[in-house]
Amino acid sequence: MTQHRYLLTEDRIPERWYNIAADLPTPMPPPLAPDGSPISPDMLSAIFPMELIMQEVSQDRFIPIPDPVREMLALWRPTPLYRAVNWEKALGTNCRIFYKYEGVSPAGSHKPNTSVPQAYYNAQAGVKRLSTETGAGQWGSSLSMACQLFGIECKVYMVRVSYDSKPYRRLMMETWGGECVASPSMDTNSGRAILEKDPNSTGSLGVAISEAVEDAATRDDTNYSLGSVLNHVLLHQTVIGQEAIEQMKMAGAEPDVVIGCAGGGSNFAGISFPFLAEKFAGKEIRVLAAEPAACPTLTRGHYGYDFGDVAGLTPLLPMHTLGHSFMPAAIHAGGLRYHGMAPLVSHLVNTGLVEARAYHQGECFAAAINFSRTEGIIPAPESSHAIRAVEQEVEQAREEGVSRTILFNLSGHGNFDMAAYEAYLSGQMTDYELPQSELDEAAAELQGMPAVGG
Amino acid sequence: MTQHRYLLTEDRIPERWYNIAADLPTPMPPPLAPDGSPISPDMLSAIFPMELIMQEVSQDRFIPIPDPVREMLALWRPTPLYRAVNWEKALGTNCRIFYKYEGVSPAGSHKPNTSVPQAYYNAQAGVKRLSTETGAGQWGSSLSMACQLFGIECKVYMVRVSYDSKPYRRLMMETWGGECVASPSMDTNSGRAILEKDPNSTGSLGVAISEAVEDAATRDDTNYSLGSVLNHVLLHQTVIGQEAIEQMKMAGAEPDVVIGCAGGGSNFAGISFPFLAEKFAGKEIRVLAAEPAACPTLTRGHYGYDFGDVAGLTPLLPMHTLGHSFMPAAIHAGGLRYHGMAPLVSHLVNTGLVEARAYHQGECFAAAINFSRTEGIIPAPESSHAIRAVEQEVEQAREEGVSRTILFNLSGHGNFDMAAYEAYLSGQMTDYELPQSELDEAAAELQGMPAVGG
Repeated sequence: MTQHRYLLTEDRIPERWYNIAADLPTPMPPPLAPDGSPISPDMLSAIFPMELIMQEVSQDRFIPIPDPVREMLALWRPTPLYRAVNWEKALGTNCRIFYKYEGVSPAGSHKPNTSVPQAYYNAQAGVKRLSTETGAGQWGSSLSMACQLFGIECKVYMVRVSYDSKPYRRLMMETWGGECVASPSMDTNSGRAILEKDPNSTGSLGVAISEAVEDAATRDDTNYSLGSVLNHVLLHQTVIGQEAIEQMKMAGAEPDVVIGCAGGGSNFAGISFPFLAEKFAGKEIRVLAAEPAACPTLTRGHYGYDFGDVAGLTPLLPMHTLGHSFMPAAIHAGGLRYHGMAPLVSHLVNTGLVEARAYHQGECFAAAINFSRTEGIIPAPESSHAIRAVEQEVEQAREEGVSRTILFNLSGHGNFDMAAYEAYLSGQMTDYELPQSELDEAAAELQGMPAVGG
Repeated sequence: MTQHRYLLTEDRIPERWYNIAADLPTPMPPPLAPDGSPISPDMLSAIFPMELIMQEVSQDRFIPIPDPVREMLALWRPTPLYRAVNWEKALGTNCRIFYKYEGVSPAGSHKPNTSVPQAYYNAQAGVKRLSTETGAGQWGSSLSMACQLFGIECKVYMVRVSYDSKPYRRLMMETWGGECVASPSMDTNSGRAILEKDPNSTGSLGVAISEAVEDAATRDDTNYSLGSVLNHVLLHQTVIGQEAIEQMKMAGAEPDVVIGCAGGGSNFAGISFPFLAEKFAGKEIRVLAAEPAACPTLTRGHYGYDFGDVAGLTPLLPMHTLGHSFMPAAIHAGGLRYHGMAPLVSHLVNTGLVEARAYHQGECFAAAINFSRTEGIIPAPESSHAIRAVEQEVEQAREEGVSRTILFNLSGHGNFDMAAYEAYLSGQMTDYELPQSELDEAAAELQGMPAVGG
């Protein structure tokens, strides 16, 4: 029997997170205050607990994972690593394809890897309530679950278009005791301002972030929590790659290519950063980020300072961006519809350590369906971008006449995204290529911003 | 760190199914032809392959699992066994609670344990197409997946009320290449006859079975496949309990009570039959089936011969039944809305080897939400009945001042059932107690049937 699955027992949950900041060949540009001045940890303490702020700025290579966090992660971790035996056969390839499957978490994606420690550190700091935004709902449900596990409240601002089209995700939050409102909402100044201009606004992640940050900044009992982009969030996801390294050893294999989809960058960082540590140490590994052609931050965006949200409430972050007022097309991979990209991932792409490619959603769904018909699991639309990238790598290996070992992160399942599959299967799905004019608008918006390294 | 999870590698997938028929202290009454005469394997060969017919009537204690079946089961098996550490704390109990989690299969329930071997044996026999019925959609999606994996077609008759309320389950079938129609449909005589009388019929499992059986009986290329009730289906599910025995050993624990929810009886049989083998060998184990008060087959139904379907196309089965024309109330646990019960489970209840209890859906959802807020996983409405039974066992142990070890089967997740959670959370869920008048109707309907042992 060909082995499909490589499992680790819960005592093998990593005992520390890997902080790639300690190993970067060239240092990261710092975040800046909105006026361009340096930002200090103090400025963040209105909305984050000190432990997370220290992680955000840490240069330590490893940061210990507290025992109560590991205990909660053990509800589903370590996650399995699979060899895609059936899919390989269907592709007719001599490449070996492995995938790390994060969909086994109760919320169905990698997101609880960071919601659990974030809820824990906030509860430890005496915070009673967390506010956050969510796009497709994966993050909002993950934070609702984690808050419930540590006994604190959770308020989620959910992008209106998803709130309306994905009621099950909202219900999941409520089942776990979270409160979920459609964003823009009447609960915040940011939300009210947008609804005043456009009562039918379908919202965006940038808008929802503004609302959640405002909520936390204006309430003493409340902190803010973000599901991607920031250094400490990416840090928490490195349990994925650390486990995968152990599991690839069990399989007697080393990846030539490591692939993840990238929206804000957290699942991509989770699978790839521990392998990048091996690359820094001399191993030959290519690392590839797969993003949507409709929101091509890494492949076509500007690299510079920009706000993380629409209202300009966040610090300025050095990142690939399509402009903070960019409104992405309504593609089905809601988790990839973000105007920016994690500064760490942006820096790695900018310095040539990570490759990036953009894919249309149609080709991604076609790939995901082939995958599901051989491996069983129906992938999340976000993860389908990684699957499409794997197909391309397989094709390229075939053309070059070589066999490669490919590892990708299957960041979540598509149980809550079946409407997207219907759109594809019924021929109603359209591809969307970002026109140059929108990039020009973004460039104009970013002209006043400080330059990276400037 | 308290251990939560007990894992087995895929080489520990059982190599044989356990056939409880070989060990029964009193023999099973046989199925009968509709006219009351004995039924022979030949009569079943129009709709089943010979391998499955032989399993249906086998008296062998163990039946080997073919390698290609084990290979496919390895896509998700062995499933994890959990100790419900957090839930125990929340319940304030000194009982130890373990659960076997079958929701990790790509379809999200235990159903693929039998859809995979059924598709395999049919494909081996040269069958090109399978027809089946589905209630909540768990079985239809599981068979669609399995047919796709072995390269044959799948046609699913889905009870209309679920077809309309659970579009995601239908889409799952289509993603895996299955064809799904609402039942009653215009595709069969049985369906057309019912639509003629009542064009707005919302259907039932009994109706859908009639359609699927007719489809298979009238097409040369097509066999029929059933997701529960029959001996060979229960047989295939015994991988659950066999794995659980190994995993309980890893945990250094032996269950005092084994609990499963029971609709047609297959997940219940899967977790309990291997433990019943230990009971037959002298171990003190109680085994408990949890069913809905709105469809109380085991606790209030008649024990005798009845048809498995509405139209009377199936053989007569010796079982607990509410009458084959019984239309269960529209409770949310669609998988438990069946008028009958597996003959093997019925026989075990009838001979006092298995206990049965009925629960209202409101108390079951309350229990499921408590579970989800401590263990993370949101249970399927069906499984919530087992969870409620565990709560009752915990309460009883408290009253008796004893500590017990309880094992239950968490047969699936509730990702496709969030509308049911909404009904509960918004106070819209009503309980339904079957009135005596409906039982009287059933008794009248069953008067002409042969008696068991008669």
